[in-house]
Amino acid sequence: MSTASHARLSLDEIAARLRTVPDFPQPGVLFRDITPLLSHPEGLASVTAYLQDALAGRQLDGIIAIEARGFLLGAPLAVAMRLPLLLARKPGKLPAQTVHAEYVLEYGVDRIEMHADSLQRFGRYALIDDVLASGGTAATVLALAQQVGAEISHCAFLIELNGLGGRARLGATPVSALLAL
Amino acid sequence: MSTASHARLSLDEIAARLRTVPDFPQPGVLFRDITPLLSHPEGLASVTAYLQDALAGRQLDGIIAIEARGFLLGAPLAVAMRLPLLLARKPGKLPAQTVHAEYVLEYGVDRIEMHADSLQRFGRYALIDDVLASGGTAATVLALAQQVGAEISHCAFLIELNGLGGRARLGATPVSALLAL
Repeated sequence: MSTASHARLSLDEIAARLRTVPDFPQPGVLFRDITPLLSHPEGLASVTAYLQDALAGRQLDGIIAIEARGFLLGAPLAVAMRLPLLLARKPGKLPAQTVHAEYVLEYGVDRIEMHADSLQRFGRYALIDDVLASGGTAATVLALAQQVGAEISHCAFLIELNGLGGRARLGATPVSALLAL
Repeated sequence: MSTASHARLSLDEIAARLRTVPDFPQPGVLFRDITPLLSHPEGLASVTAYLQDALAGRQLDGIIAIEARGFLLGAPLAVAMRLPLLLARKPGKLPAQTVHAEYVLEYGVDRIEMHADSLQRFGRYALIDDVLASGGTAATVLALAQQVGAEISHCAFLIELNGLGGRARLGATPVSALLAL
């Protein structure tokens, strides 16, 4: 589908298209808004190409995308790599039988659900999300996969936020991030 | 990225990968679950190719994807067409200044938000979602676009549910659906 006339944005150009919004969704948080990047005709295509590079040569049975912004990155990546796309969703969104794991937030407990028939025992998957912050959500999907005998063999993010301990929380799992902010 | 060895699924094969779940999310509703289709390595790539065919030759300034399942279809389509991707989200999710429109549900009022700087005045956009049911959400995005002087010049869905009046609610806007169920 791609033609030679498409030029991949540099990582600096990608970083320049992010918008930092202070105090969202709550006071003290610097939110990294990817929508100006998505508004660039080559933005998401470029991110997809970099993520594909990060996963090149790995034996994968699928891409797991985390609701909702992870869907934006995981879907084109799964298409580009011709891999199954699996969804990790908020509670109550998936209609068939689910498996779940929970994680503790500052203000309570949240839960991630996947369809019970989506993760294959002994399968190897790459987990995709837009931002690695504290790593709580990603660590929960790792635990969920382990629970059913599957493995998250790689985690890939557009942005890694420094100083929040996210990478440490993912243990020995290899982590790629296109930008560290 | 695609190679000649990839075979697009037929529309019958796509339909066969949908799972119908009765009484979800509420009694009496037959939910059309696209996750088995997404689990096929050629599933989302094939849907993307059909949607691209449906929009071929149209002058478009971007793709609008509706949260959350619309993200799964809209993102790879925007990448394939090298078009800006714009997000229509649930309330409180977008961090910068938003515009909004509301729609009435059986059990209340819901609201769709878009970033105020995403839709361009006089711009022409294709609206993408997985399912056209009653058309409430899509009609709301049409109203929102009109409010800022933009136009939804095409609506494209994977599935159109017959007998729910969705297409009528979108007025004169051209509508494509890959499957009618």
